[in-house]
Amino acid sequence: MRKWFAASMPMLAALFLSVTATHADPLASWQDTAAKEAIVTFVERVTNEGSLDFVPPAERIATFDNDGTLWAEQPMYFQFMFALDRLKALAPQHPEWQTTEPFASLLKCNVKAALSGGEPAIAKIILATHTGMTTDEFDQVVLDRVTTAKHPMSGRLYTQMVYQPMLELLDYLRANGFKTFIASGGGIDFMRPWTEEVYGIPPEQVVGSSVKVSLEVRDGVPVLMRSPEINFIDDKEGKPVGIQQHIGRRPLAAFGNSDGDLAMLQWTKAGVGIRFALLVHHTDSEREWAYDRQSSIGHLDKALDEALANGWTIVDMKKDWKIIYPFEIN
Amino acid sequence: MRKWFAASMPMLAALFLSVTATHADPLASWQDTAAKEAIVTFVERVTNEGSLDFVPPAERIATFDNDGTLWAEQPMYFQFMFALDRLKALAPQHPEWQTTEPFASLLKCNVKAALSGGEPAIAKIILATHTGMTTDEFDQVVLDRVTTAKHPMSGRLYTQMVYQPMLELLDYLRANGFKTFIASGGGIDFMRPWTEEVYGIPPEQVVGSSVKVSLEVRDGVPVLMRSPEINFIDDKEGKPVGIQQHIGRRPLAAFGNSDGDLAMLQWTKAGVGIRFALLVHHTDSEREWAYDRQSSIGHLDKALDEALANGWTIVDMKKDWKIIYPFEIN
Repeated sequence: MRKWFAASMPMLAALFLSVTATHADPLASWQDTAAKEAIVTFVERVTNEGSLDFVPPAERIATFDNDGTLWAEQPMYFQFMFALDRLKALAPQHPEWQTTEPFASLLKCNVKAALSGGEPAIAKIILATHTGMTTDEFDQVVLDRVTTAKHPMSGRLYTQMVYQPMLELLDYLRANGFKTFIASGGGIDFMRPWTEEVYGIPPEQVVGSSVKVSLEVRDGVPVLMRSPEINFIDDKEGKPVGIQQHIGRRPLAAFGNSDGDLAMLQWTKAGVGIRFALLVHHTDSEREWAYDRQSSIGHLDKALDEALANGWTIVDMKKDWKIIYPFEIN
Repeated sequence: MRKWFAASMPMLAALFLSVTATHADPLASWQDTAAKEAIVTFVERVTNEGSLDFVPPAERIATFDNDGTLWAEQPMYFQFMFALDRLKALAPQHPEWQTTEPFASLLKCNVKAALSGGEPAIAKIILATHTGMTTDEFDQVVLDRVTTAKHPMSGRLYTQMVYQPMLELLDYLRANGFKTFIASGGGIDFMRPWTEEVYGIPPEQVVGSSVKVSLEVRDGVPVLMRSPEINFIDDKEGKPVGIQQHIGRRPLAAFGNSDGDLAMLQWTKAGVGIRFALLVHHTDSEREWAYDRQSSIGHLDKALDEALANGWTIVDMKKDWKIIYPFEIN
C-alpha cells in the first residue's frame, strides 16, 4: 500500500543528506526573523531541564492544522478537488446526478453554482464521494488518487505542495521530544493513507472530520463500511473537542492558518504554563498565494486580530520563509 | 498531577531491577506453557526481517481490552464502584435522587435493585456521576479517587489489581517495536489519567467509551464541558469502529477476555497476513476469580467458542500465570 513512496526514497534520502550536510540548522528554510526566533526560544525553554518552563517529553504535544498550514489549499481545498474527480468517475453509476443539485452543476464543471448551496451542498458532495465502501477500499482510492492527481495550476502532486519550512518544523519538534499530530477540518481518512510518508505523522496521530463507520459481515468476513452520515466535524470549536477525544491532552503548541484554527489556538494558550500558538499568514502572491480576511478558503480574520492582540507568532510567508515547497531545493 | 506516583518510583525501580536481575525472561510471570509459546512465536515471526511474516514497526499495533484483561473486574467493574462513590459524594447536592431510580436504590446500597433497570439504568448512573464538569476537573476527580479508593475485597488500590503477566506482555511487545493501545468499553476519560503510569500507555493511545464534550467560555477562558450525553460506546461491534476512528489501522494483535472483545478479535484476525488474538480466561477462583459463560460481568461465551474453534490463544489464568498481581512479587 505504501509502495509508491519506495521508488522515491533513495532520491529523498540523497536530498535529505545534501540538505543536512549543507545546513546544520534544522530550520534551514526559515529566515532568521522573529518567527523563527520565537519557535527556537519556546522549544529551548520547554526542553531545558533547568528551566522553570521545562515540560516532560510525554506532555510535549504539538497539533497542526493541515490545509494552508502544512500544505497549500488554493484555488480550493485539495480534498474538494479529490471529491470532484471521484464524482466524475462515479457519475456513470449515478444517472440521477445529471438532474440533481449540486451534482448536476458540478458535472457541468460549474463549481460556483454547485457551491451556491453552501455547506449542505458541500456535505452532499463529500458524502456521495467518500462513502458507500469499506475503509480499506477508501484508503486505496485515496492513495491511488494522491499518487497521480496533479494540481491544476502548479502541475505538481498535491503531496509535493507541502511547505518545506513546516516539514523542518515537524522534524525539529520531534527531535526535541514532541509528539506531532494533525488536527484538521479535512477528512481524517483522506489524510491518514499518506501523512506518515509525507509528514512523518502516523495515522493514529491524525485528528480530522469523519463519517460514521459500522461493522458489517461480508461473505463471513467483518468489514468496516463508511456510511453517508457525518460523525464529527473537526473545525472551529470542534478542534479542541476532537483533540480532547483523540489525544486526551491539551497541546503544548498549536499551529494553524485560519479562523477555523482559532479555538484550537485559544484552547492551547489557555493551558497552564508556557504554551505556543502560531499562525501561518499567506502573504506571498508570487511563490504561493496571498489571502486572509476576504478569502472564503482559509478565511483569516478574527484569528489574525487575536494573534496580533496577544502576541502569538505570525509567519509572514513572504518574509519568513526562504523557500515554500521542497521541490524548490536544488 | 502525576505526582502521586513519584513516591513509589524508587520502590518500583528497585523491584524492577530485582526482577530483571533474577529473570532474563521478559515474560517471567508466565508459565512455560502453550500460551506463552504462542506469544513468543508470533512476536518472533513478525519482527524477524528475514521472515515472510515480517511486519514493519509502524504497523505493529496491539490493542488491549482493560477490564478483565489488564486489571480485575470483580465483583463489579471498578469504574462502576467509582460511580457509586461519586454518587454518594454528590447526593447532598441532589435531593431528588432520594426518590428517583436508580439513584434511590443505590443510595440505600441496593445495587441489585438499581441495576434491575438494565443498561439504561447504568447509563443514568454513569452520566450523573461523570458529567457536568470540565475535562480538567474530571481528570482530577478520577485521579483523587484512583489514588485512594480500596477494592472492597482485596483492600488494594484498583491500580494494584493489574495483572503482572500482562504488564510484562505490554513491555515485551513495546520492546519489540509494537505500539500498545487500550480499546475498552470503559470510559476513555476514566482511564486516561492513570494508564501511562500503570501500563505505560499514554492518554493518546487509549480508546474507550465517551460522553459528548463541548467548548464553552467561562470567565473569558475556554473550557471543555462534559455533557450528560453518550458520544460513543466502545464495546462489542463498537470496538473495531473505535479502533478505526482513533488509530486508523487494523491491529496486528488484540487481547481481550469477554464477548465484548469478540468483534475486535475477529476484525484483527480478518486482516491480511499473520495476526494474533488472545483471550484471558478467568479460571482461578483462589488467586483471582473464576467465571465465564454464566457471568454478567466479563461474560465469555461466544468468544470462547470462537477461540476454541479457530485456535486463538486462550490464557488459563490458573495454569498459565505464575502470579496474578505485581504485589505478589517478593
